[in-house]
Amino acid sequence: MKASQFFVSTLKEAPADAEIISHQLMLRAGLIRKLGAGIYSYMPMGLRVIRKVERIVREEMNRAGAVELTMPVVQPAELWQETQRFDKMGPELLRIRDRHGRDFVVQPTSEEVITDIARQELHSYKQLPRNFYQIQTKFRDERRPRFGLMRGREFIMKDAYSFDRDQAGAKASYQAMAQAYRRIFDRFGLSYRAVAADSGAIGGDLSEEFQVLAATGEDAIAYCPQSDYAANREKAAALAPAGPRGAATQALTRTATPGSSTCAAVAELLGVPLQTTVKSLVLATDEGSKSQVWLLLLRGDHEMNEIKVAKVPGLDAGFRFATRDEIEDHFGCPPGYLGPIGLKKPLRIVADREVALMADWICGANAPDFHVTGVNWGRDLPEPDAVADLRNVLSGDRSPDGKGLLAIERGIEVGHVFYLGTKYSQAMNATFLDENGKPRLFEMGCYGIGVTRLPAAAIEQNHDARGIIWPDAIAPFTAVICPIGMDRSAAVQAAAEKLYADFLAAGVDVLLDDRGERPGAMFADWELIGVPHRVVISERGLGEGQLEYQHRRDPAATRVACADVLAHVKGRMAV
Amino acid sequence: MKASQFFVSTLKEAPADAEIISHQLMLRAGLIRKLGAGIYSYMPMGLRVIRKVERIVREEMNRAGAVELTMPVVQPAELWQETQRFDKMGPELLRIRDRHGRDFVVQPTSEEVITDIARQELHSYKQLPRNFYQIQTKFRDERRPRFGLMRGREFIMKDAYSFDRDQAGAKASYQAMAQAYRRIFDRFGLSYRAVAADSGAIGGDLSEEFQVLAATGEDAIAYCPQSDYAANREKAAALAPAGPRGAATQALTRTATPGSSTCAAVAELLGVPLQTTVKSLVLATDEGSKSQVWLLLLRGDHEMNEIKVAKVPGLDAGFRFATRDEIEDHFGCPPGYLGPIGLKKPLRIVADREVALMADWICGANAPDFHVTGVNWGRDLPEPDAVADLRNVLSGDRSPDGKGLLAIERGIEVGHVFYLGTKYSQAMNATFLDENGKPRLFEMGCYGIGVTRLPAAAIEQNHDARGIIWPDAIAPFTAVICPIGMDRSAAVQAAAEKLYADFLAAGVDVLLDDRGERPGAMFADWELIGVPHRVVISERGLGEGQLEYQHRRDPAATRVACADVLAHVKGRMAV
Repeated sequence: MKASQFFVSTLKEAPADAEIISHQLMLRAGLIRKLGAGIYSYMPMGLRVIRKVERIVREEMNRAGAVELTMPVVQPAELWQETQRFDKMGPELLRIRDRHGRDFVVQPTSEEVITDIARQELHSYKQLPRNFYQIQTKFRDERRPRFGLMRGREFIMKDAYSFDRDQAGAKASYQAMAQAYRRIFDRFGLSYRAVAADSGAIGGDLSEEFQVLAATGEDAIAYCPQSDYAANREKAAALAPAGPRGAATQALTRTATPGSSTCAAVAELLGVPLQTTVKSLVLATDEGSKSQVWLLLLRGDHEMNEIKVAKVPGLDAGFRFATRDEIEDHFGCPPGYLGPIGLKKPLRIVADREVALMADWICGANAPDFHVTGVNWGRDLPEPDAVADLRNVLSGDRSPDGKGLLAIERGIEVGHVFYLGTKYSQAMNATFLDENGKPRLFEMGCYGIGVTRLPAAAIEQNHDARGIIWPDAIAPFTAVICPIGMDRSAAVQAAAEKLYADFLAAGVDVLLDDRGERPGAMFADWELIGVPHRVVISERGLGEGQLEYQHRRDPAATRVACADVLAHVKGRMAV
Repeated sequence: MKASQFFVSTLKEAPADAEIISHQLMLRAGLIRKLGAGIYSYMPMGLRVIRKVERIVREEMNRAGAVELTMPVVQPAELWQETQRFDKMGPELLRIRDRHGRDFVVQPTSEEVITDIARQELHSYKQLPRNFYQIQTKFRDERRPRFGLMRGREFIMKDAYSFDRDQAGAKASYQAMAQAYRRIFDRFGLSYRAVAADSGAIGGDLSEEFQVLAATGEDAIAYCPQSDYAANREKAAALAPAGPRGAATQALTRTATPGSSTCAAVAELLGVPLQTTVKSLVLATDEGSKSQVWLLLLRGDHEMNEIKVAKVPGLDAGFRFATRDEIEDHFGCPPGYLGPIGLKKPLRIVADREVALMADWICGANAPDFHVTGVNWGRDLPEPDAVADLRNVLSGDRSPDGKGLLAIERGIEVGHVFYLGTKYSQAMNATFLDENGKPRLFEMGCYGIGVTRLPAAAIEQNHDARGIIWPDAIAPFTAVICPIGMDRSAAVQAAAEKLYADFLAAGVDVLLDDRGERPGAMFADWELIGVPHRVVISERGLGEGQLEYQHRRDPAATRVACADVLAHVKGRMAV
């Protein structure tokens, strides 16, 4: 491609509403343009990236035996009513009424339509297993669309759906997809992690997220460098601490802690480790007009994990934080100095498993500016009503698989493989005939990749002050030829055209920048756009039979003999 | 591709609501499945056809210098309000309200969005000319969707938009697209005609339709076999007849024509050519509460052309057919025996140009069961108030370019190139700076191809009693290998696998049917699906070192030596 026949459009500054780096760089590099909140045009430069992502996905899906089709963007509500998602999904499901007053949705995914296709097309167990996929426009009416393609409303997703005759088959289909996803993400050239999205309990639903690692990622991932263990921190189980509880060695003591309303402040004031403090979180549940107040106890250095709390019996039907009135009513004290000793009114106490094994700990005294130290279960207060895993895991925690210590890193979810079971086939009565001629529900799985989110994640992971740094596989162009003074120098022009032809003949996706921009502006454009390989042709260099090569990550250019340039670039390309 | 890894799903019968052959065959061959009225899933077999259409379109658009991007499916109403299309377009524009109550549309085309992009991106005449295109899902909420992909609601269209600095540039861009379209349609391997969509007047708006010829086409095309002239019959001008008017030779005579209320019946009864009769069509126009009745006179063998009538001064603000009361009020006679002589009330008479030159003609006598013969202008009635081209051209009419006689054939519109001028740039104030630094409106053109309609049109043109007959370029597979008894014969299996590998290595898009179907069912499937080249491998044939080749259009198979089969198929493939 020659730049003069393409469309290069860069901006010096990103619009003020672009908050994260990938959004800013995608706008500045001219990959996307905003049309409305969460709705973007994919400009020529951005579309090339998307197409490369799509091609890799398509090749590996086909290799794994999945078959491509395309389901409609606008889908009749009737199918969505069969699964009750038409009513259950919130306003993020974009609903339409047509000219005849019939209800439709703009697809956010296609479980209903593919299940409808399966129940019409797949009659016999002999037609199974079967995996259909599409790469198609989706819409989710996010309440607060932001971050460009990271959390847009209209987006492109690859969604695949497997149909099997039984659970064993469905799990094999799931594993085949999980393997295909590893190949896909390997080919993208990104640093990623496949992460258990459930608690890892054996026999539970199978589900894995594919997270592109980036410091700015929304998701925290807990992983064990010594083993394969990796899980979304939301779901990572804390290993049950080894007992037994230590013996009490300190007396219960009321201690003045003026102005120290946090565990960290108390630990610092008293000169003790933060791990000896216990924080009090007050929740409430409602049943009709009756409320129940709950006190959750976590170690001072631990954070509450809402997903785990929501699994505690009694809290699993929904909970909220307690009101200030409820707190004062039960503790006789405003927040900041709360604790489980000397309560005004009874409440239910749930201790994190770590707290349940602590001795000689510190907590609020239920009086402003006072804490108690040397607290011990059984002696100073009764055993808790319940003990549970309530907390996020921390870097340095023992891995749940017992094979080392956890580390935490951040990631961006761009893929998800999920074993669905018969959730949709049951709701839609989608059956096939088994060997005995009896109708059976399909065992299903679904498998998504955020095709337009992936480039944003790639940028979050790969950029510097000058712009984007694309991996070869998904760069809009793999290489760019920058001739200096092409309009003035016949030698430069001839060398540029020859090199361009040589690159094309060698199958390198190359762009020749024949726009006639000055070197500074030209280099800045391609550094911003992030083309990984750059060759500069100048009259002076040619005089010495040399060109300049620079990888986007190289600190400086390397002089290379004209005849060796193609081989040099190929040598630097990712395999 | 092996059939076992693909998805082949044929039906013996098409659903009853599939009225036309392409719709029936697309359903029976498993190319599409209906999801709702005018909404279809593109099944794996159909998607392959669509992808091949897209690839040809994309290659030729790129070759012509157009640059691909993708605009959103869901578009904010604000832009559509700038051009007033949000209000002016009828219910075929699918409107949506998002969760915040903002209005959106599902794009039927993208003039507004691309003009918005142009006014943001194209600042200077130096950036022009520029042509952007997309291949993207569209939606038109047709009142009566039918005929499968021929007149669906959701469809895929390639839409391109050119931006130029002046009319001369815009016309050059238009011509470049018209040329690219000829290359595209040539490559599809279909019989088509590029047809002037306007009246052909020089200096008028430039507009051409690309019509795939098919006896079942909705559009009638008038063309001249002796020249390049071709136009949609709706717009084809009738050549002005050569004058002068003949002299009167007959006396005006009232003639009984009992029960003969049509020109054809009168001509037969009286034993005269239909061309000597004149039919009366009664229209009316309304201005406020006042109505004006019009009498249009056309030769008995001619049909009224509404588009031409709508250009007659006085009728150009809208007209309707007159009511029975209006007719009786002006003619004193019910329809069937009307004529311009002896009117009860004055009205405006418009004669077709042919009628204005006739002598000794026949028309209704304004009395049931009576006509008058020997009618002559000037002698028996005054000259008409207006003379105009009111009729559809007929086969055998002289071509408007004077180079021969017109023929009529039927076609299906699948492409359209259109010079827009400043219609959208003016409405949206989309300007660039010219050489003098002054803002000027873009001169625009738009260029569409119905990507999902094209396969339907191809089938209307290419089918027989057994099914579809694809041109090589857009067949789901170019060739199919049908081994007989592959599961029983190692020799057949080995030969099939080898041939499959050879075809793939030679770049032939081949499918190996390894499903194990019986020969009859297998052949019926591929004849229905319409794969153009078929090779049958049987144990008996192999014994004689031969395979059977049959083109989908061949009446019978040809025996070919195993070693020659690939060359034979390549020899029969379209170049």
